[in-house]
Amino acid sequence: MSRKLTIALDAMGGDHGPEVTVPAAIDSVTRYPNLHLILVGDEARLRAELDRGRSAFGDRIQVRHASEMVEMHETPSKALRGKKDSSMRVAINMVKDGTADACVSAGNTGALMAIAKFVLKTIPGVDRPAIIAMLPSKTGHTHVLDLGANVDCTAEHLCQFAVMGYELVKAVENHQHPRVGLLNIGEEEIKGNEQVKQAAKLLTGTHINFVGFVEGNDIFSGNVEVVVTDGFTGNVALKAIEGFAKLLGGSLRDEFGRNLVTKVLGLLALPVLRAFKGRFDPRRYNGASLVGLRGIVVKSHGNADRTSVANAIRVAMLEVEMGVPDRIGQRVAEVFAEERIA
Amino acid sequence: MSRKLTIALDAMGGDHGPEVTVPAAIDSVTRYPNLHLILVGDEARLRAELDRGRSAFGDRIQVRHASEMVEMHETPSKALRGKKDSSMRVAINMVKDGTADACVSAGNTGALMAIAKFVLKTIPGVDRPAIIAMLPSKTGHTHVLDLGANVDCTAEHLCQFAVMGYELVKAVENHQHPRVGLLNIGEEEIKGNEQVKQAAKLLTGTHINFVGFVEGNDIFSGNVEVVVTDGFTGNVALKAIEGFAKLLGGSLRDEFGRNLVTKVLGLLALPVLRAFKGRFDPRRYNGASLVGLRGIVVKSHGNADRTSVANAIRVAMLEVEMGVPDRIGQRVAEVFAEERIA
Repeated sequence: MSRKLTIALDAMGGDHGPEVTVPAAIDSVTRYPNLHLILVGDEARLRAELDRGRSAFGDRIQVRHASEMVEMHETPSKALRGKKDSSMRVAINMVKDGTADACVSAGNTGALMAIAKFVLKTIPGVDRPAIIAMLPSKTGHTHVLDLGANVDCTAEHLCQFAVMGYELVKAVENHQHPRVGLLNIGEEEIKGNEQVKQAAKLLTGTHINFVGFVEGNDIFSGNVEVVVTDGFTGNVALKAIEGFAKLLGGSLRDEFGRNLVTKVLGLLALPVLRAFKGRFDPRRYNGASLVGLRGIVVKSHGNADRTSVANAIRVAMLEVEMGVPDRIGQRVAEVFAEERIA
Repeated sequence: MSRKLTIALDAMGGDHGPEVTVPAAIDSVTRYPNLHLILVGDEARLRAELDRGRSAFGDRIQVRHASEMVEMHETPSKALRGKKDSSMRVAINMVKDGTADACVSAGNTGALMAIAKFVLKTIPGVDRPAIIAMLPSKTGHTHVLDLGANVDCTAEHLCQFAVMGYELVKAVENHQHPRVGLLNIGEEEIKGNEQVKQAAKLLTGTHINFVGFVEGNDIFSGNVEVVVTDGFTGNVALKAIEGFAKLLGGSLRDEFGRNLVTKVLGLLALPVLRAFKGRFDPRRYNGASLVGLRGIVVKSHGNADRTSVANAIRVAMLEVEMGVPDRIGQRVAEVFAEERIA
């Protein structure tokens, strides 16, 4: 776990840019002695932020100038064709040419996926990369994919996601045989759309630990470690959960803020409420991986703060250490050759 | 609001059957003097439960014997073809022949939809009925459809859902011009699948207050009153939220149960925690409507308790009072004739 790791950080991406990415970079190299970071973006701004947070990281943080940046609402095609020197593009190029082992960006997801696909290419046997992230569950956490890269998915795409999710969780969670469920709307075999029904047939008999259909609540039940779905459903479910969590948080604050008595109770109960909140702190879950590419690309949330960005860097480190793309590449080749899924 | 209303209650459905439906029926007639209920099911069991809860409801609760019942995991086709005298079928028949103004069932959703469609038929202009229910939002609540009746939906189906949702909310919420959003994965027009993109085009320019695309978090944001999606996505999102709520509830109990100090704090904060929980009490939100049928059918949750079933009865009453199917019928005819959506 102590070999040198180099990660390129698109330091311009996200809602806050260098103000957040630079401090997160400093935190990360301070914490992990084997970590080297290359901050990609506007050199003057990055150096100014680095000077502000000067600490003893030696040469483990470098700066690579990039003259452009991808805007949060830019179309993927425009970002891909029009901005050859964007911080996002330069960071991904570094993974391609081996300068970096992985890259992390808080930039616009569509552009990140488009550029990563174009520059890095997909693993042979994988038609479409997917976005996978972790959510809290009753027994730990569940990895869910696809969270929005692929709107329309065939049964074969869903099978590829299943294999990728299985291999990723096996690697990064050090789990022997993670259980994989296919998201559907009812446990009976008769229900569901054609794609999921067909995908379930294809997955039965493969090497992965496919447990069949699961429902939305199983993202949190701890019954499976991997939940597979198309990017439309996955993204809607993820955003719905985020919205619900926000509503609950606001409401809990309202109830404790109602009057002097409830305010005092809230103060007394603060350690308990903090522990409760900590369990579901979205910052702990920051860092979604673009899997299926010939390289490691991690997406940090657009409004990620310092702690969140550091978590996304940690996710990238773990995937480098575990060699996730190689593992996926091997397995996908096996499954799709021997087991004839596609 | 005081004309006589008659509702047929499938008293055998759900996980608990008459033990829950009969007390809920008694509560409801006690509360609403204009309400008449017909309990449909095993007469001996229903009479025994009624005797146990004897109170002053006079002839406002009647019993109609039905010799069969639909099992929770029975296939819709088997329930439809094989059980002509099921409590569910008999209750729906009563809506068809005018004996009842509406029916409520906690039975299996697939069977309920299949039988209701077969017996009642859809409103002219509606290809497929949908399931609509209410969820809490920042400003009150949001109605979401479809929650699972239709796995694959065309743009035209989504448009019909939008019109039905708009008319239902206008009626039951007494809202002048409810905002309708189409669930998608990103606000930019380029994103989304073909069905939602096409549906958005069709909805622009209709009489409904279509505000465009919304994301999963908007179910709770209070930005719209109606969220439209296909039944696969809607069902997954709903179940995911239920699962997340359950996880949070369990975790809050864990944190307050950790030691003596936290237990005492939990007891002190109980009124606040109860108020918080009350806001999101799923029992308050029980009662999903099958819209698009020539009659009112309300689905109660399978594991609904007494309070929940009474809420589902209230939902049915409100739809009868507001004449929801007629309003939907009028508008659908207008939209699909004049505005040429389909």
